[in-house]
Amino acid sequence: MASNGNGSLANGASTRGKPIKCKAAVAWGPGEPLVMEEVEVAPPGHLEVRVKLFFTSICHTDLSFLKGENEQQRKFPRILGHEAAGVVESVGDGVEDLFPGDHVVLIFNGECGACVYCESGKTNLCGAYRVDPFKSTMASDGGTRFAVVDRSSGERRPVYHFLNTSTFAEYTVLDAGCAVKIHPKAPLDKMCLLSCGISTGVGAAWNTANISAGSTVAVFGLGAVGLAVAEGARLRGAARIIGVDINPEKFAKGKEMGVTDFIDSKACDKPVHEVIREMTDGGVDCSFECTGINDVLREAFLTTHDVHCACLGWGLTVVLGIHATPKMMPLHPMELFDGRRITGCVFGGFKGKSQLPDIVDKCMNGELKLNFDGFITHKMPFSDIHKAIKLLEEGKSLRCVLHF
Amino acid sequence: MASNGNGSLANGASTRGKPIKCKAAVAWGPGEPLVMEEVEVAPPGHLEVRVKLFFTSICHTDLSFLKGENEQQRKFPRILGHEAAGVVESVGDGVEDLFPGDHVVLIFNGECGACVYCESGKTNLCGAYRVDPFKSTMASDGGTRFAVVDRSSGERRPVYHFLNTSTFAEYTVLDAGCAVKIHPKAPLDKMCLLSCGISTGVGAAWNTANISAGSTVAVFGLGAVGLAVAEGARLRGAARIIGVDINPEKFAKGKEMGVTDFIDSKACDKPVHEVIREMTDGGVDCSFECTGINDVLREAFLTTHDVHCACLGWGLTVVLGIHATPKMMPLHPMELFDGRRITGCVFGGFKGKSQLPDIVDKCMNGELKLNFDGFITHKMPFSDIHKAIKLLEEGKSLRCVLHF
Repeated sequence: MASNGNGSLANGASTRGKPIKCKAAVAWGPGEPLVMEEVEVAPPGHLEVRVKLFFTSICHTDLSFLKGENEQQRKFPRILGHEAAGVVESVGDGVEDLFPGDHVVLIFNGECGACVYCESGKTNLCGAYRVDPFKSTMASDGGTRFAVVDRSSGERRPVYHFLNTSTFAEYTVLDAGCAVKIHPKAPLDKMCLLSCGISTGVGAAWNTANISAGSTVAVFGLGAVGLAVAEGARLRGAARIIGVDINPEKFAKGKEMGVTDFIDSKACDKPVHEVIREMTDGGVDCSFECTGINDVLREAFLTTHDVHCACLGWGLTVVLGIHATPKMMPLHPMELFDGRRITGCVFGGFKGKSQLPDIVDKCMNGELKLNFDGFITHKMPFSDIHKAIKLLEEGKSLRCVLHF
Repeated sequence: MASNGNGSLANGASTRGKPIKCKAAVAWGPGEPLVMEEVEVAPPGHLEVRVKLFFTSICHTDLSFLKGENEQQRKFPRILGHEAAGVVESVGDGVEDLFPGDHVVLIFNGECGACVYCESGKTNLCGAYRVDPFKSTMASDGGTRFAVVDRSSGERRPVYHFLNTSTFAEYTVLDAGCAVKIHPKAPLDKMCLLSCGISTGVGAAWNTANISAGSTVAVFGLGAVGLAVAEGARLRGAARIIGVDINPEKFAKGKEMGVTDFIDSKACDKPVHEVIREMTDGGVDCSFECTGINDVLREAFLTTHDVHCACLGWGLTVVLGIHATPKMMPLHPMELFDGRRITGCVFGGFKGKSQLPDIVDKCMNGELKLNFDGFITHKMPFSDIHKAIKLLEEGKSLRCVLHF
C-alpha cells in the first residue's frame, strides 16, 4: 500500500494480550534530548486500544513539554507526541467500535459519546477524554501502559502518557475515545496531520468563525495552525487572507497556501491593527491569534471591523495560541460592547470521532481539496526525530512526518 | 386616550418651524441637583425630528452622568434622560419615514438603515447614531437644539444633548434614526420602557444568548435590566432563573418577575459561582452580568457550566453592566479554551427601528406577554423628578414613569 502511504498492516494476532517491546523516543527530563529506548507497551485495558503507529509528526506543543516550559506540567519519563496515524493492533475490554486492523487517526481531544458534555451538543470537549495537560496516566486505572526496564538491575520504571496519545513510539495505548476510525485507503502519512494542526486551524475557520465566501481574514502567526486557518478560509472562499508574522521567510510558504497579503509586524512603523484597518477599509471580519502572545491577542482583537476607529464594529477574534503567561487578557470589559467578539477554540471545534471520518471521505472523493501536501515540508524515518525537532525549533519546517 | 396612557395628542401645526419654550430638568454641573428651567427647543434640523414627550423614566445611566462619575463624559449644562415615548411634533428636512402625529419610542442606539454597519447585517450598532457617551451635540451641524435664556442679561446659553435623546424635557429634538414609530394605540406610559431597560435585558436573553426552553440562567444584579433579562428568559421557557444581588429586599420583586431562586451574595460563605454550581449540577447555560463590577464579571463567567470543576464546560456570559473601572477584564486567555464564552451586548442586540414596532404589535395582540407593569413601581408627574431620582438611588424603585 505504498501508494497511499500506509506501509504494511499490523497483524495483532500473535501479540494480542501480551506486552509488546518496541522503540520509543523517551523524554527523561526538562530540556534533555529524547532518548531512543526499548519500551514495554502493555496490552490495552478497559475501553482502551493498542495501536501500531505508521506515522507521527511533531507540533510546538511537544517541544514546549519537552523543554518543561510550564513547571506544573513536567512529568518524566514521558512519551510525547500527539499527531499520528496507525492501525489498531488489539482492543481492550468493552471497546465496541474499533477492531484490530482498523485504520485510525489519534486525537488528543477525545470523544466518549456518552458523557454530559458529549451529549449536550454544546461543546466538542469531552468529560472523559478532554485534552488535559496535567494528565499523564490512563483514565481506566490511573496506571501507565509504558515501561522501561533497566538492563542491569532489571528494574521496571513506568513511563508517563501525554495528551491522551503519546505517539513517539512504535506502539501506543490510548482510550478508544481518542482513536478515530477512518477509511482504510486514506493515506496515513497525510491523515496524521488531522490529529492536531490541520484540524485545529481549519476547524477554527469553519466551525468557530464559520467564515463565509467573500470574508476578510487576518491570521497572526504563520505556523502550521495559522496556515491551516488560511487553508480553511481559502476553502470557504474568503476574499482576502492577511498573514502576519515576525519572520518574513514564512511568507513564500504562506503565498503557496493561499495567503493573499503579508505583514511583517517587525517592519511596521505603527500598530499592526492600524495597518490592516487601512488595507481593508476598516478591518477584517475574522482574526485568528495563533502565537500565544498577549499583546498579539490585543492586536488581533483590534484588527476586526471598525470603519471609523470609533470603537464600533463587528467581527470575531478566535484565540488558538497557547498563552503561557500568567497575565490576564489585555481587554477592557467595555470593549466587549463595541460589536466585536472574542472566543477560544480547542481542536477547531471538531468532535473528532463524529466528524473526522466524513472529512477524510470527502478528501478521498475529491469533494474537499485540503492541501495536506502543503503542510508536509519534510519526511524522514522516526530514528531522525532529533533532526525533525531541530527543524521545527528553527522555524524551518511546518510539519515533518516521521515514518516508523 | 387615557385608557392607553397616551394623554392628549400633540398638535404641531402652530409650532412647526418655530422654537418652542417648555419645561426641562437641566443638569448644571456634576453632582448638582437638576433645575427645572424654561428652555428653548429649536425646530428640527436636517434628518431630525422634534417630539412632544408624554412619558419619561429614569435609568442608572442618567444618574451616573448627573454625578459626573466619568470625568471625560462631563458636559454641562445638559438635558439628561433617555427612556421616553411621545408624539412627533414636526420633522426636519429629509425625514421621510416620520410625520407629525406619529407615536414614537426614543432610542439611544439609533438605526440609520443606510450606513455600512446597518447594511452589514453583522451588528445592531449604527455608524451614524450609535450610542456614544461623548457625543453632546447633533450630528447634522454639531450644534445643540436646546438653549436657556438668562432672564436678566438675555444671554442665550446652549444646553447639551445626551445619548441621542435628552428626554427630561417636554419637547426634545433628536435624529429621526433614533425615533421608532410604533402603533398609535400602544400605551406610551409602558412603551417608554422599551427605550432602554426592557429592550436591553429582554434582547440580551433573546438575541444575544438565544435562551432556549429548559435552559438554566443566572442573573447578577436585580435592577431593571437584570429583571428584564429574567423576563426574557421566562418568556423563552427557561427552567431555572437564579437571581444574585447584595440587597435581599430585591428578592420579592424578583419572584414576582419570574426569578426562581435567589442568592444573597453577601451572605455566601464561598464564591457565588460555587454555590450556583452546586445548585445546578455543574453550572448554568447562560449568565448575565448586570452590575458593572469586575469581580462580579468573573463570578458570572465561572457560573456557566463546568460539571467537574475541571475547566471544562459550556455556556455564555453576557456583559450588560457599564464597567467604569480602568481595570482590564479579569479573565485569562486560556480560560477562553474551557468551552465557555463571553460577549457584550448593546441595546439587547435589537435593531430598534427594524424590530421594536413588531415587538409592540405582538404585545398589543397578546402574542407576547411582556410584563411592563411589573417594572413600573412608581408613577408621578415630571415635576417630581427629584423624588423619582431619590427612589432609584436608594434602590426603592425599578422604574418610575414620569408624565408631562
